Amino acid sequence: MSPVLTREQALEHWQGHRRLTRRTIEAFPSDEAFTTFSVGGMRPFAELTKELLHVAVPSLQGIVTREWPWLPEEAPATKAEALERWDVATAEINRLFPQIPDGRFDEVDRVFGQWEMPVWAALFYAIDNEVHHRAQGFVYLRALGVEPPAFPDRS
Amino acid sequence: MSPVLTREQALEHWQGHRRLTRRTIEAFPSDEAFTTFSVGGMRPFAELTKELLHVAVPSLQGIVTREWPWLPEEAPATKAEALERWDVATAEINRLFPQIPDGRFDEVDRVFGQWEMPVWAALFYAIDNEVHHRAQGFVYLRALGVEPPAFPDRS
Repeated sequence: MSPVLTREQALEHWQGHRRLTRRTIEAFPSDEAFTTFSVGGMRPFAELTKELLHVAVPSLQGIVTREWPWLPEEAPATKAEALERWDVATAEINRLFPQIPDGRFDEVDRVFGQWEMPVWAALFYAIDNEVHHRAQGFVYLRALGVEPPAFPDRS
Repeated sequence: MSPVLTREQALEHWQGHRRLTRRTIEAFPSDEAFTTFSVGGMRPFAELTKELLHVAVPSLQGIVTREWPWLPEEAPATKAEALERWDVATAEINRLFPQIPDGRFDEVDRVFGQWEMPVWAALFYAIDNEVHHRAQGFVYLRALGVEPPAFPDRS
């Protein structure tokens, strides 16, 4: 049962990804591109950002409290609104993460009342879902002729 | 120092992602689409698959042995070749993973002789890089009019 990473490392890992996603929002060349452009009939990056906001703090609330809120979220109408909501979520994640009860990661829960999985997997689902949709934003940026931020840079 | 997940869970997590990536390769409608189609001047999915093969087993070899091989890899010329090489890597990952020395995840190493990071971060870099590039493959599939495999399904 050799552990791979600690909760402090997991928090830093997640926030590193979230800093990169924040730079991805910033990289969109206009509010219009952010809220309307997409490829292959997919959702624009504002809609993907809405999903990421919808998953991040509510997942952590479920992990901490065992109650899974499914809060309504509107897609951000501008990049500035997205960044402001992103920063609120960042602070809330930093506040909630240390409250995760000891031993909680190994419990099995029904995430958002629907998906049964261990709590560690719920955490990584939130992170992986962000990596997944952000990468789609990278394609949108390339299709718009914009260089995406550097993937390995999590500063 | 409450651990988030064990090495057995991390291996299963990674292989779950790798099963989804395998289905993504399979979903390309032809060898030509796999080896030549892309969006926004990016690399076709065969080239991204080459990178994933280039990172996965060599990263794990570095994690296990502290030697970082940087092996030449050719892009797969067909979907069948990609899937065959994918399956070889799957078996090799299952063989190598249990050989990771105790305490190794907390060591800091120079990954592939270049990037200094803790070993747990090197493991997650390999996984995240796969999630990232696979998501770009999802966009290629959508742009080709093909439904990608289900993201949450890791079976």
